[in-house]
Amino acid sequence: MNVTIWNEFVHEKTDENIKAVYPDGIHAQIAKFLGTDSEITVRTATLDMPEHGLTDEVLESTDVLIWWGHCAHDKVDDAVAKKVQERVQRGMGLIVLHSGHHSKVFKLLMGTTCNLLWRDDDRERIWCVEPNHPIAKGVPAQFELEKEEMYGERFDIPTPDEIIFLGWFAGGEVFRAGCTFKRGLGKIFYFQPGHESYPIYYDENIQKIVTNAVWWAKPNIIVDELNCPNPKALEGN
Amino acid sequence: MNVTIWNEFVHEKTDENIKAVYPDGIHAQIAKFLGTDSEITVRTATLDMPEHGLTDEVLESTDVLIWWGHCAHDKVDDAVAKKVQERVQRGMGLIVLHSGHHSKVFKLLMGTTCNLLWRDDDRERIWCVEPNHPIAKGVPAQFELEKEEMYGERFDIPTPDEIIFLGWFAGGEVFRAGCTFKRGLGKIFYFQPGHESYPIYYDENIQKIVTNAVWWAKPNIIVDELNCPNPKALEGN
Amino acid sequence: MNVTIWNEFVHEKTDENIKAVYPDGIHAQIAKFLGTDSEITVRTATLDMPEHGLTDEVLESTDVLIWWGHCAHDKVDDAVAKKVQERVQRGMGLIVLHSGHHSKVFKLLMGTTCNLLWRDDDRERIWCVEPNHPIAKGVPAQFELEKEEMYGERFDIPTPDEIIFLGWFAGGEVFRAGCTFKRGLGKIFYFQPGHESYPIYYDENIQKIVTNAVWWAKPNIIVDELNCPNPKALEGN
Amino acid sequence: MNVTIWNEFVHEKTDENIKAVYPDGIHAQIAKFLGTDSEITVRTATLDMPEHGLTDEVLESTDVLIWWGHCAHDKVDDAVAKKVQERVQRGMGLIVLHSGHHSKVFKLLMGTTCNLLWRDDDRERIWCVEPNHPIAKGVPAQFELEKEEMYGERFDIPTPDEIIFLGWFAGGEVFRAGCTFKRGLGKIFYFQPGHESYPIYYDENIQKIVTNAVWWAKPNIIVDELNCPNPKALEGN
Repeated sequence: MNVTIWNEFVHEKTDENIKAVYPDGIHAQIAKFLGTDSEITVRTATLDMPEHGLTDEVLESTDVLIWWGHCAHDKVDDAVAKKVQERVQRGMGLIVLHSGHHSKVFKLLMGTTCNLLWRDDDRERIWCVEPNHPIAKGVPAQFELEKEEMYGERFDIPTPDEIIFLGWFAGGEVFRAGCTFKRGLGKIFYFQPGHESYPIYYDENIQKIVTNAVWWAKPNIIVDELNCPNPKALEGN
Repeated sequence: MNVTIWNEFVHEKTDENIKAVYPDGIHAQIAKFLGTDSEITVRTATLDMPEHGLTDEVLESTDVLIWWGHCAHDKVDDAVAKKVQERVQRGMGLIVLHSGHHSKVFKLLMGTTCNLLWRDDDRERIWCVEPNHPIAKGVPAQFELEKEEMYGERFDIPTPDEIIFLGWFAGGEVFRAGCTFKRGLGKIFYFQPGHESYPIYYDENIQKIVTNAVWWAKPNIIVDELNCPNPKALEGN
Repeated sequence: MNVTIWNEFVHEKTDENIKAVYPDGIHAQIAKFLGTDSEITVRTATLDMPEHGLTDEVLESTDVLIWWGHCAHDKVDDAVAKKVQERVQRGMGLIVLHSGHHSKVFKLLMGTTCNLLWRDDDRERIWCVEPNHPIAKGVPAQFELEKEEMYGERFDIPTPDEIIFLGWFAGGEVFRAGCTFKRGLGKIFYFQPGHESYPIYYDENIQKIVTNAVWWAKPNIIVDELNCPNPKALEGN
Repeated sequence: MNVTIWNEFVHEKTDENIKAVYPDGIHAQIAKFLGTDSEITVRTATLDMPEHGLTDEVLESTDVLIWWGHCAHDKVDDAVAKKVQERVQRGMGLIVLHSGHHSKVFKLLMGTTCNLLWRDDDRERIWCVEPNHPIAKGVPAQFELEKEEMYGERFDIPTPDEIIFLGWFAGGEVFRAGCTFKRGLGKIFYFQPGHESYPIYYDENIQKIVTNAVWWAKPNIIVDELNCPNPKALEGN
């Protein structure tokens, strides 16, 4: 099981407060907890690498890709975003975290704006709606994130295949916080918590959910090409 | 209720057999039967018109857009396709017919390849799965299309919100032939029958379904712009 | 369009505070605002009537049934509940309000316990997730109910076909407050607001939603019997 | 992982042709191929056993229950059917095979009639719609069942959570042949192939699908009781 964690890795280098939370970058912290699962091989990739670290070689050997981006969505090359979309269509799993809702990759796959309401500095309570979903394994009925950015409805996404978590915010909003989608052969999980200013990826429940999601998104098959066959009739003559 | 019917209008000018079926173009035949509903105002637009006939003025006064395209998908300007996508996100209804599955507009909205199996010259039986859906009003439990192009699974689309019709093909294939989706505020209906060589849009059941779909896709509201607001908290202090 | 409003009509006769809110019963208040739509013919039925007012004659001439019950679910005759279920299966629309989540009728149709968290005396904010759904026509992006009973997740229902509204509660909970389902040929809308102690059915937005839901649930067809046909093959020989 | 296979076990004792196909009963054949998975512990239970073999002790130690029934649905005790429904609501997985569509257990969980079209002695082709679903692991894009009873649409079920397989029948019908549902905490897979007269459960693809489904339906948790809690507010005072 090969997981690649992509992070734009900008805030952590430009903002002291964020650096204090994630000194080696958000990707490093995610890699750390995922790496404790001995069956997962983790790699990381960042915006400033050639091809943003998502070369053909890397992508073609990735089973599940994790995506974190925020202030530099526009700097992601269109060609790379399309290559990721195409790899998902061929079967690769994709976990989109927090502000990744506005990434090129996610918007290409959703077909919508992925807009939402937002506000810094709120408090969130995550409610689990599907306790027997693999992504919810070991997660309590509800848990609190003492500080989290508010993301509120209407979240402009297509109807999710499944809603696993709903978010409640102290400021008065609600959010479909954990949703699954299928696009092509690929399985996608969007998970809202993860603001860069707060130590969200140090939270044990969050770690459990992301790890579960990686296993859930693992493909049976990834095909080599996408085509539109013109077969002979199976029946008749 | 303002409906705009877009047709690439190529086959009907270049192929005598197709011209024989649709002498004034597929759009003209669809306009004809939709026009019998006195509450619908119909316009048509084609590829060869400036901006493919989809100027801001036309789009901004369209409640529901119907799309038929096949051999000239690539000739549709990217900017026009994105403008249509954006208008759907703001609330406009969209009916995508037959080979429109591979149109830029539909693929932008689905995020998938929309690939499928295909074969000319088959016979189809359409089964209704949701008799109380508005789109199925007055449609029998099943009906036959003596000649239709085969479109078979796996149809590479996201999970539809609703499957209204399933198609059976004499050659051995099945197809999710009538599906609804929501993208942004817009409602979308994809309907598979409609190959240019056969008189599909003269069929009474097909006409009923397309007319029903137009009414179903009619928006409550179309917003002027798409944004991602940053509101103050409703609660707390 | 024939709508029958069923109310157990117990609280309003036994509790002075509730009587003060609904002197003629909740059903009377719902009938009042629905009756302002000149195309709707309204009847009411209550627990204490013979067959709870749901005789064959009444049910067979009902297009959409509204159900409010709370403290007397057990007093509803099993045979009547099954008759309602069967009529829904044949195509009748059903609107289940508030504490009707635990009615025999709703539980028979859902197959689940329909359990939830609950607490008296909270404050709710309703968020609209699907502004272009017919049930949301004319409803704002969010509105407040100053006093409402808290109903919280996990709400033990099958995956809804559509989630139209989400509820936020001041006490910290969230709820899938407005959901649609299809069962048999019938369309079902569950809507959470409506506690007997508060003047919920005098709220303009609530009235709009219930009225919209009635029109949405109106069937194309209601069949006379449910059967499992053994047809001859359509193809082959 | 504890799997209990329930079979009414009637046809195999009363009809020589069926006995020839399944000399020890359908349950024995299913137990045989499931038993080759060393991580699955298999038990069987039949109609003629006390409590139909589904005592509290058996059910409470079952992670996933498989159900095959046909001519004796009415002979299943209501109390046993309700106990199974309740165990599914608490988290147990359930695989309902073929004519089990009309079992008390399945109808209680669906809330619909589960009616369909049917005809003996047809030929089926199964198409896979979701190749990356765990239930489809290792299953080809399509495969044929040379002889199978026809089950056709409209299949009176609630909207499935997922449609994994679609069936094509030589006689002209289509069917949602492999569907998932969630009811309570339990995961349910309905799979249409499995007529008693044909050696369906000797087919390698069928065996793969049923085995995959058992793993997919395995619960994270099974709760001890179903309740409707009245918690204190988490927020405010």
